Amino acid sequence: MKEFQLIRQIQRETAVSSSTDSCHGVKLGIGDDAAVLEVPAGQHLVAATDTLNAGTHFPDDTSPHDIAYKCLAVNLSDLAAMGASPRWALLSLSLPGADPDWVQSFIEGFQSLAQDHDVALVGGDTTSGPLSVSLTALGLIKPGAQLMRSGAKPGDLLVVSGTIGGAARVLDLLQAGRSVIDRQLLDRPQPRVKLGQALIGYANACIDISDGLLADLGHVLKASGCGARINLEKLPHAGILEGLEDGLRWNYQLSGGDDYELLFTLPSHHKEMISTWSRELDIRLSIIGEIEEDEGIRCIGQDGAAYNPQYAGFEHFAQKP
Amino acid sequence: MKEFQLIRQIQRETAVSSSTDSCHGVKLGIGDDAAVLEVPAGQHLVAATDTLNAGTHFPDDTSPHDIAYKCLAVNLSDLAAMGASPRWALLSLSLPGADPDWVQSFIEGFQSLAQDHDVALVGGDTTSGPLSVSLTALGLIKPGAQLMRSGAKPGDLLVVSGTIGGAARVLDLLQAGRSVIDRQLLDRPQPRVKLGQALIGYANACIDISDGLLADLGHVLKASGCGARINLEKLPHAGILEGLEDGLRWNYQLSGGDDYELLFTLPSHHKEMISTWSRELDIRLSIIGEIEEDEGIRCIGQDGAAYNPQYAGFEHFAQKP
Repeated sequence: MKEFQLIRQIQRETAVSSSTDSCHGVKLGIGDDAAVLEVPAGQHLVAATDTLNAGTHFPDDTSPHDIAYKCLAVNLSDLAAMGASPRWALLSLSLPGADPDWVQSFIEGFQSLAQDHDVALVGGDTTSGPLSVSLTALGLIKPGAQLMRSGAKPGDLLVVSGTIGGAARVLDLLQAGRSVIDRQLLDRPQPRVKLGQALIGYANACIDISDGLLADLGHVLKASGCGARINLEKLPHAGILEGLEDGLRWNYQLSGGDDYELLFTLPSHHKEMISTWSRELDIRLSIIGEIEEDEGIRCIGQDGAAYNPQYAGFEHFAQKP
Repeated sequence: MKEFQLIRQIQRETAVSSSTDSCHGVKLGIGDDAAVLEVPAGQHLVAATDTLNAGTHFPDDTSPHDIAYKCLAVNLSDLAAMGASPRWALLSLSLPGADPDWVQSFIEGFQSLAQDHDVALVGGDTTSGPLSVSLTALGLIKPGAQLMRSGAKPGDLLVVSGTIGGAARVLDLLQAGRSVIDRQLLDRPQPRVKLGQALIGYANACIDISDGLLADLGHVLKASGCGARINLEKLPHAGILEGLEDGLRWNYQLSGGDDYELLFTLPSHHKEMISTWSRELDIRLSIIGEIEEDEGIRCIGQDGAAYNPQYAGFEHFAQKP
């Protein structure tokens, strides 16, 4: 299979129908030197890019379906954290070889999530090289409506969607050679696109949790110039963390990455919206603490005792402890 | 050096000043989950993405300055082939380690070309992994003005900018262990942005030559449903191809990739524009043949004799001959 055949395969399998074309604003899609896209009047463009490398961002035995799914999911999660509506994607795929079945499964994984969120693949690049997927997601937002990291204010409630720490636990088990029957927490994160859109006009700050709660909360606090208190007993956990000692569970929840849940800060007078969103979007939302004036993060464990977490989240290039 | 330090270094070095921000339409740049960009009314967005992997797209000993330069150049070349005006870029950088000097040189290479074309870096991603650079370039064009591969018509003149085959010759010499004093043809291709813009309203079809003349001309002919005649003696060559036998030189010119020159087809009644563009943009332009009705590519050598080239251009995943 040659590169041009591979591109044609991707083009054929992801082709947006001509009727869809117009509502997606795709004036020219895959097959020329670049895509031409129409951004509707009264909308700003929102753009994010993220790369997943084999062995670093997903275990080497991850299925092509899940690699594609996850690469789109983590980028849609970035758009979700801005409150944007996803629209288009460009994909760069580096492959050691070109196996049509592998590519077919990859495309199916991509499409399974792309169709849920009405995302059209409009361009890309295929190259030979170590397995790596780089994706750029483009979306739309009303001018000025974007959720940012910088708006958190003392007194805001600190809220997180879904559960956290589960993806890191799955990865740890796999790396220890243990079998994990359901890897979805690691392989198929749910980008919280509708939640992000719902938060516009309510949340003061928002970020997606990709590097771990402490690390990503740290970004919000640094951008906003304040601190926070976390009530460890309020941290939501998936079943896979059941039965672990508090310290180990908290460690996964505070420092584990790859959850792609939204962390947002909400003025307390909007507190009642939390149950509304939770019900309407069928999503778990947990108040895990509060924004405070004093810089730094204070973790409170059982009986109100301070707890010092061991690690501060995943960083590429960081020295291992 | 940690990931967040690395991102801050890139952010600091590429920061667009607040006055530039507004004319670039950057509402939110590096530092949040995604960038927010303003596409002016009456303009369409043009988007291209290309990845360069170490060892495949550039020799392992390429300087970080030139890796960054080339990755931006090949993407701007895609925008140029559409006639678009470059505006923004998102960068995904995979690095085996994080050496501040390496990153500094990389950023300088990026900026040296970005500033020439008024491109603002608005987002990206840094990960640990095999050396690889993936870039998405975003530009603007008036609705319907884009140059496409599909518009070539029989009788059109076939025109190429600059010289072709030189980059492949440099690479061959390097791979044979020979020293090359000036590697610019390989390392620093010139994206023909102004030429692409000038061709709007004149050229019937346009593509940039990345995989080699025959391969890229083939894309134009396939999209346009016609064929072409190439006069081999009209192919423009750089000094590095001087002194080679005709067959070897033609092979570089027909099948060598990485030149990033524009290949376009021009109705013959616009022929006089060629010297105008050449003079105004200070760029060599050569009429190398003509579009014909019959499908296929006919290469004509000395004394009008047909010539059958050996290779058909670079393809990733292709079987080596």
